[in-house]
Amino acid sequence: MPKIAVDCMGGDYAPEEIVKGCILAYKELGLSTYLVGDRKAIEIILRKEGVKESEALTIVHAEEKVEMHEPPSVVLKKKNSSLYVAGMLVREGEADGLVSAGNTGAVLAVGKFVVGTAEEVERPTIGVPLPNPKGKTVLLDVGANVDCKPRHLLQFAIIGHTYVEEILSIKNPRVGILSIGEEEGKGNELVKETYPLLKMSKLNFLGNAEGRDIYAGTFDVIVCDGFVGNVVLKASESLGLAVIQMIKEEVQKSLLARLGALLMLPALNNFKKKADFAEYGGIPLLGAKKPVIITHGRANAKAIKNAIRVANEFLTHRFNEKLRENLIKLAPEGVKI
Amino acid sequence: MPKIAVDCMGGDYAPEEIVKGCILAYKELGLSTYLVGDRKAIEIILRKEGVKESEALTIVHAEEKVEMHEPPSVVLKKKNSSLYVAGMLVREGEADGLVSAGNTGAVLAVGKFVVGTAEEVERPTIGVPLPNPKGKTVLLDVGANVDCKPRHLLQFAIIGHTYVEEILSIKNPRVGILSIGEEEGKGNELVKETYPLLKMSKLNFLGNAEGRDIYAGTFDVIVCDGFVGNVVLKASESLGLAVIQMIKEEVQKSLLARLGALLMLPALNNFKKKADFAEYGGIPLLGAKKPVIITHGRANAKAIKNAIRVANEFLTHRFNEKLRENLIKLAPEGVKI
Repeated sequence: MPKIAVDCMGGDYAPEEIVKGCILAYKELGLSTYLVGDRKAIEIILRKEGVKESEALTIVHAEEKVEMHEPPSVVLKKKNSSLYVAGMLVREGEADGLVSAGNTGAVLAVGKFVVGTAEEVERPTIGVPLPNPKGKTVLLDVGANVDCKPRHLLQFAIIGHTYVEEILSIKNPRVGILSIGEEEGKGNELVKETYPLLKMSKLNFLGNAEGRDIYAGTFDVIVCDGFVGNVVLKASESLGLAVIQMIKEEVQKSLLARLGALLMLPALNNFKKKADFAEYGGIPLLGAKKPVIITHGRANAKAIKNAIRVANEFLTHRFNEKLRENLIKLAPEGVKI
Repeated sequence: MPKIAVDCMGGDYAPEEIVKGCILAYKELGLSTYLVGDRKAIEIILRKEGVKESEALTIVHAEEKVEMHEPPSVVLKKKNSSLYVAGMLVREGEADGLVSAGNTGAVLAVGKFVVGTAEEVERPTIGVPLPNPKGKTVLLDVGANVDCKPRHLLQFAIIGHTYVEEILSIKNPRVGILSIGEEEGKGNELVKETYPLLKMSKLNFLGNAEGRDIYAGTFDVIVCDGFVGNVVLKASESLGLAVIQMIKEEVQKSLLARLGALLMLPALNNFKKKADFAEYGGIPLLGAKKPVIITHGRANAKAIKNAIRVANEFLTHRFNEKLRENLIKLAPEGVKI
């Protein structure tokens, strides 16, 4: 029975919502967790929820916690933090995966350097499933790897393929490389050098994806370097917030529009649910030795439950084994990556 | 009295809406244009609108037109196309600026190679004013220059500064460089090398801008290479379309929500107006010898009128003179760019 280490002190609603998420994961899905953090604080929440510490919900005390703006260099020295302790539980084989709503850079650092990188992988990568009217498109890398070489993008493509096929259950995913212009030969130097590698691979490679493909449902996996991916991801979040604020301001000006907004609320909430990645269980650090799931800082109990579920899916679907196979099977003939 | 050459055959609603746009520019703003394209087609529209050809609305016949997907290499050989002929009118000093709703790559190529680059500029750049709740942020470059050197980004910053100050009337604009992470030293190689140049410049440089700053109103000018800028721009458009479609699908499911949407319509249209860049006159190719304005392919008469207005503003505000001064005045001490 796998057991996931959950950083109970990371995130805007920690520890309350995090601990509740662990309880939900156990009650609804029968999943076991280590609750890592301040023992007293966690005990109070467990008691309030009428739950006893057990084999399925085991507290592991950690003195400190990682703050929202601490850089990775500090995080990796703060060995008594709940995040670091959770990472060590995984590293030492006590726990089988890590979930944290703490600051992304910190979780990434602990994922890479404490949990560690899967043997066959050169660089772990963060993949985000972005919503579109037809389903989801996984964009990777979105910030773990700033400057990349062509072979890294090729690895990301195979990692993304494996994630989409094994975890999102889309067979033979359509893979593209983010570029400007559709035709082969369009793009920057990195794209031009990576294109032939992807073309020679055994992936279902459809060629260049443009910015407009990201939310159009025309690809299942789109690879890019972490600089471009991060900018696109954050610009998208920012555009969403700006649009909501600008519409709100217009709606405020008219009574009828305010009434209209009220009537539309349930539909808007349904949309929000589809669009919100907290709903489907956080962002995985792909290519780590064991599943590492980074959830949004605003993660509530449900998001944490989903993240624990996804971490378990990585294990039950034997993600890392499949990835190892795919890195050999799908690579271009004669290219060792 | 300046006179703008308008490519009447480019765009989804050409020639009808384009010719009407020229008529509007004359009737409402007193601005003169060359109407470049199929003489007969243009005459029919003028007649329908009850307008006579004149010194202010002068037809220049062109046999051919550029198709939506013709690559720049083809466009630059199609010398009888309305776009090319319009470009030549500017090059030869007959006309004082160019407006086209034709395919962006084609207009860009004609702008760069037929109209030509301003002497002091190394690479013309496309800047897009993107909406945010507080105003607009100009992102550049968004596709004219794929791989860039630090000195190019420095030029783009000064070009963007000049555009925002002279045309958008924002004094001492806040300038940033698109990166991941806020602190100096964060970003890819290009950003790290450009940062010190911007810091030493006389620009009001605030440091790194993140993706989330693009739509937040925290900067007036954000520079990036044309690969990143184009991807962000197209991803934003695509996200907008996806959100609208996903909300529509949810709204369709409920009668009340449909009623709500109806009541909200005027507010949504006001928002759309603020967000739609067609409303404020197209995208300039900055650093060309004369104003070149690229409008959206879906440009209607009003958008064309606005583009003609903006082309004239570049002239009345003596944009290129100011730019030449700024390239000297704002450059870092001792750095010739």
